Amino acid sequence: MTAIAGTDPRDFLKDLASSRAARLLRDALDQRWRAATDSVDRLSTIHRYALLPPGKLIRPILMLESAAAVGGRAEDVLPAALGLEYLHVATLVHDDIIDADETRRGRPSVPLVYGLPDALVAGDALIFTAFEAITECRAAGVSDAAIGASVALLARAGNDLCRGQVLEAQLTGNPGIELESYLEMIRLKTGALFRAVCQIGAVLAGADPARCQQLARYGEQLGIAFQIRDDLLAYTTSAAAAGKSPTTDLANARTTLPVLLAYQAGTTAQRRRLVEALGRRSADAAALADFRRLLDDTGALDRAPEHVAIHLRRARHHLSTLESSPSVAVLAGITHFATSGQW
Amino acid sequence: MTAIAGTDPRDFLKDLASSRAARLLRDALDQRWRAATDSVDRLSTIHRYALLPPGKLIRPILMLESAAAVGGRAEDVLPAALGLEYLHVATLVHDDIIDADETRRGRPSVPLVYGLPDALVAGDALIFTAFEAITECRAAGVSDAAIGASVALLARAGNDLCRGQVLEAQLTGNPGIELESYLEMIRLKTGALFRAVCQIGAVLAGADPARCQQLARYGEQLGIAFQIRDDLLAYTTSAAAAGKSPTTDLANARTTLPVLLAYQAGTTAQRRRLVEALGRRSADAAALADFRRLLDDTGALDRAPEHVAIHLRRARHHLSTLESSPSVAVLAGITHFATSGQW
Repeated sequence: MTAIAGTDPRDFLKDLASSRAARLLRDALDQRWRAATDSVDRLSTIHRYALLPPGKLIRPILMLESAAAVGGRAEDVLPAALGLEYLHVATLVHDDIIDADETRRGRPSVPLVYGLPDALVAGDALIFTAFEAITECRAAGVSDAAIGASVALLARAGNDLCRGQVLEAQLTGNPGIELESYLEMIRLKTGALFRAVCQIGAVLAGADPARCQQLARYGEQLGIAFQIRDDLLAYTTSAAAAGKSPTTDLANARTTLPVLLAYQAGTTAQRRRLVEALGRRSADAAALADFRRLLDDTGALDRAPEHVAIHLRRARHHLSTLESSPSVAVLAGITHFATSGQW
Repeated sequence: MTAIAGTDPRDFLKDLASSRAARLLRDALDQRWRAATDSVDRLSTIHRYALLPPGKLIRPILMLESAAAVGGRAEDVLPAALGLEYLHVATLVHDDIIDADETRRGRPSVPLVYGLPDALVAGDALIFTAFEAITECRAAGVSDAAIGASVALLARAGNDLCRGQVLEAQLTGNPGIELESYLEMIRLKTGALFRAVCQIGAVLAGADPARCQQLARYGEQLGIAFQIRDDLLAYTTSAAAAGKSPTTDLANARTTLPVLLAYQAGTTAQRRRLVEALGRRSADAAALADFRRLLDDTGALDRAPEHVAIHLRRARHHLSTLESSPSVAVLAGITHFATSGQW
């Protein structure tokens, strides 16, 4: 951490957003999807709406930097990196159906604009396109063996992600769950895809198994940290900053980390109020303000960031065996700054 | 056709259902999913419910027979064949969400039993599992190149399938569409996956491109024939035989072949009644009986089977270049009998 002491998080994030990797990705996404208009076909139109303008592209950036960290060329794994963004966006579209969310990235959600049936199908198609994208790396000279291994890794991660989502629904409404259950759930729901992104980047770049494994572990811990931060942001940031409805977690009675920490630390009265508030599944701003206050009173909003820090430290630890390079520095920088509030 | 003149369709279908390919598939499905109980995890429980007892397994049987038709071993491509069944079942689960269907294969549909959120996620997971399954053929000695090519074919077919579903929704409610639009829609929606099944079977078995292409074309035409037959069965068979709600096509205002043929042949009054009936989107048995009568009066129910026959003839034509073998005979037999009413 000392090496980057004094760096302003905003500077790092601005650099990341204008980095070569980010530009490669934005240009490729734009080129691939900009032309998709109603005159082409409706499915492509929906995909364009879901993909452009792009989000922060953290997953594909991680893939490109992971590939570069083991000596690969970003261009060679670019199709797969786009594929990971497709898969991520597919999960967002399906999530918005499940949670009945009307806002995503500050805009009307895909199901709101195009209806549930077409949104569901468009999400499915993005999953297929993700796998197709991995096979496109063959044209850049990536070996068939690396492509096959990457397909298997992505499929496994996708399965884990689904398992995490079902587990999340099972934990819903019960703030008395163990920390371990929550961590296992977000490891599956978010950690698995971050893990796959970094590991696939390294595999496609032809790295040895040991380095692929280190990057996989880095990604998993980073993903867990990101999810905890996301769960925390629901109660600490404005709707505009979050880009999605601020009440969705409460309305869906999600037992995220702040909630379970509040329950653990709460008095009997506070615990009862927590359970009642989750039971009401209110999407009301006043209910959200009350709930925030309750979380704050128990100290949960202060303690949750410590958990983010634990997993970021672990992520950095897994990076420490890799040879220094600009890409390893970026991966390390992400653990320092990318979970800051501005992003 | 002369070679099998006199064969009773029921005998062929009974033989197919008890064939080595079908037994291999049923045993493998049972072994893989039987143990999935609530004590394991909910996602596996949903998958078991969706997959067992299996349906007619037409797609995976086609894959095994296509592989055998070019000299491959059914065992080597068995994982991929299971994968194709997973993908097919995923589309059924998602379709049941989209159409709000409560019955599938004569049982309560997955969304009805497990709710929309978990049904949606379980469908997604089956898509991921399909791709994972293809990579499992590596253990049987299938080459990395064949696996990569198969992943690309499956991804493309999945995309086509989604494109067909969106197109179907766009054509909904309008019986005045051209035959060509309907055929293009079902080619994407159903033909693409049948095509991929046969082609992937041949690719995994290491066949030369020409034979892979012939089997691909066979599959596409067979799939189109199956879809026309399915669309026809909605108006000619009982709910019990169809295994799904008999009113779903009418309630969803599907402009399937019988509907567009009825519109083309109908008088002004009949056309108006068709449009009105679709507009009501009724799921009522009396409305369905009226609609059936209307289709019958125009001669549409008599003429639709001719279209099934056209595509089956084309499918057989594509088989004719392959060397005779028991598997080629099965593939040919499917074009003669598998669209008969009993199945």
